[in-house]
Amino acid sequence: MRLLVTWTDLREKDLEHIAAETGADVLQGFETEEALNLAREADVILGGFMSPEVLAKAVNCRWLQSPYAGVERILAAKWGNPEMILTNGRGIFGPNISEHVLGLILSFNRGLHLARDNQNRKIWEPRLPLPFQELTGATAGILGFGDIGRHVAKRLAAFDCRVLGFRQHPSAGEEGQGVYAIDRLPEFLGSLDYLICALPETEKTVGFLNKNLLRLLPKHAIIVNVGRGSLIPAADLVQALEEGWIAGAALDVTSPEPLPVDSPLWAMPNVIITPHNSGFTAFFKQRALQIFFTNWQHFSETGSPRMNLVDPSLGY
Amino acid sequence: MRLLVTWTDLREKDLEHIAAETGADVLQGFETEEALNLAREADVILGGFMSPEVLAKAVNCRWLQSPYAGVERILAAKWGNPEMILTNGRGIFGPNISEHVLGLILSFNRGLHLARDNQNRKIWEPRLPLPFQELTGATAGILGFGDIGRHVAKRLAAFDCRVLGFRQHPSAGEEGQGVYAIDRLPEFLGSLDYLICALPETEKTVGFLNKNLLRLLPKHAIIVNVGRGSLIPAADLVQALEEGWIAGAALDVTSPEPLPVDSPLWAMPNVIITPHNSGFTAFFKQRALQIFFTNWQHFSETGSPRMNLVDPSLGY
Repeated sequence: MRLLVTWTDLREKDLEHIAAETGADVLQGFETEEALNLAREADVILGGFMSPEVLAKAVNCRWLQSPYAGVERILAAKWGNPEMILTNGRGIFGPNISEHVLGLILSFNRGLHLARDNQNRKIWEPRLPLPFQELTGATAGILGFGDIGRHVAKRLAAFDCRVLGFRQHPSAGEEGQGVYAIDRLPEFLGSLDYLICALPETEKTVGFLNKNLLRLLPKHAIIVNVGRGSLIPAADLVQALEEGWIAGAALDVTSPEPLPVDSPLWAMPNVIITPHNSGFTAFFKQRALQIFFTNWQHFSETGSPRMNLVDPSLGY
Repeated sequence: MRLLVTWTDLREKDLEHIAAETGADVLQGFETEEALNLAREADVILGGFMSPEVLAKAVNCRWLQSPYAGVERILAAKWGNPEMILTNGRGIFGPNISEHVLGLILSFNRGLHLARDNQNRKIWEPRLPLPFQELTGATAGILGFGDIGRHVAKRLAAFDCRVLGFRQHPSAGEEGQGVYAIDRLPEFLGSLDYLICALPETEKTVGFLNKNLLRLLPKHAIIVNVGRGSLIPAADLVQALEEGWIAGAALDVTSPEPLPVDSPLWAMPNVIITPHNSGFTAFFKQRALQIFFTNWQHFSETGSPRMNLVDPSLGY
């Protein structure tokens, strides 16, 4: 079996590990040109940011494992083999992304971003031009209640928060546990102190959190977005922040990315920006390879990977 | 009864509230000169940062309520009435200081301080010159395991941390729950990923966390200090950070305060400084007055306040 590896985070040692674990003929395609030359030969691909051309040429590829969770670009491309099975990396980002979310909320509450600016100027100024908020006892909504959302919810519970989850398809038993269908979000927005967004990019989510919804949040609410920037129309977000509909936004994702230099978001006093790196963790490679190896074994035995299958009709 | 109020955060409305709740003759001494003139008349004082001169003149004061937790300066002064009872504000800072601690840890882990620097320059750079660490599953020591320490421990538990507490006088049942006497700290230092310091300033704590102990921490360890800066000898801390004995320090307290402009700590890449404001919270006044009123009622009935009594021999 020929395995094309295009995931550029991997090193020689990792490729040896993969070869040993899978017994596959490992083809290295870190450069797009290499990958294009090898795509036709691949039975399986392990890779994240795939160029559409490589996907188009992979006519024999039966399974593509992405180490990342968001796969909207892969789904948007034309696949050389329309029957290819796609699996993603969901489930490995819960610890680090939930820590990123909590860190951003607590930065706002404690003014850590402003303290950092003062540290850079060697200024000791206990009073800051923002109210010190408490997360403890607050109400938080989590828009996109999958693995990441549940990791966030568990941590918020230790701050005695009331947590409401919103997802596309809540399971039967979830409503009693405060998890609702996304279309019920407007009913609850007025009660949220924090709105944490962890949705994938799909047809239904692009532009979903628009000005009509943003206006329903309390003026003291903070939005945290670690899903996809396309969720919130850029102009609506700027207006909400400029006109004080909400108190602030912490954005790990923007639309577009990288955030253009002329975006007003960069310099707003009530905005914290991190460069789409909430998914980064020292354990990324190890956890993603674990999923890949589990899937590999099942694929070898049955012709299909076992976990993290992406449903193209849902987009995640 | 004459109540001298020197707590400068209070406003006219608060003084009216206090007068109504206590029925006392309220004397306002926000300026030191006013307070000096009124000190002799006071039966009770409600105040935080008291000048030693005011304390010396308060010969008739039977009870002093500080809204703050740290009272080392009050204890170091000579009191006009050596029999005066001192009560403090402990127990009201748990939510906000624990949020400050978690925010500082997560800032380090996620590089939020470095992302802030990049945001100020409008630079989108996902890779940062630090390792992304995870709090989840880590081991944390809490030096000073009182109300604040327990609030921190509860929140760390939601990150699946192993938490070890260290306090001067653990109660009989605590050792089984991972709470140890402070003199056992050296046994455990080598296993700590995070060391959170929340000790008051007493004879025993000044200079306690010296270079001999700092050397026992792992190189990847992060120290967070929200207690008193005097705990760690300034030169030892700088050496530990410069020579890489530890990975970083987040300091809400320093020695001295404000941190002098020529301190190397300001500009170290592995140091986050906040200006002794972890105690700040929108709920401070409300919670401190609640303690004061509870104590006032008991004091009126029995001649002694009921809660948060400070033991001068312990220093807290």
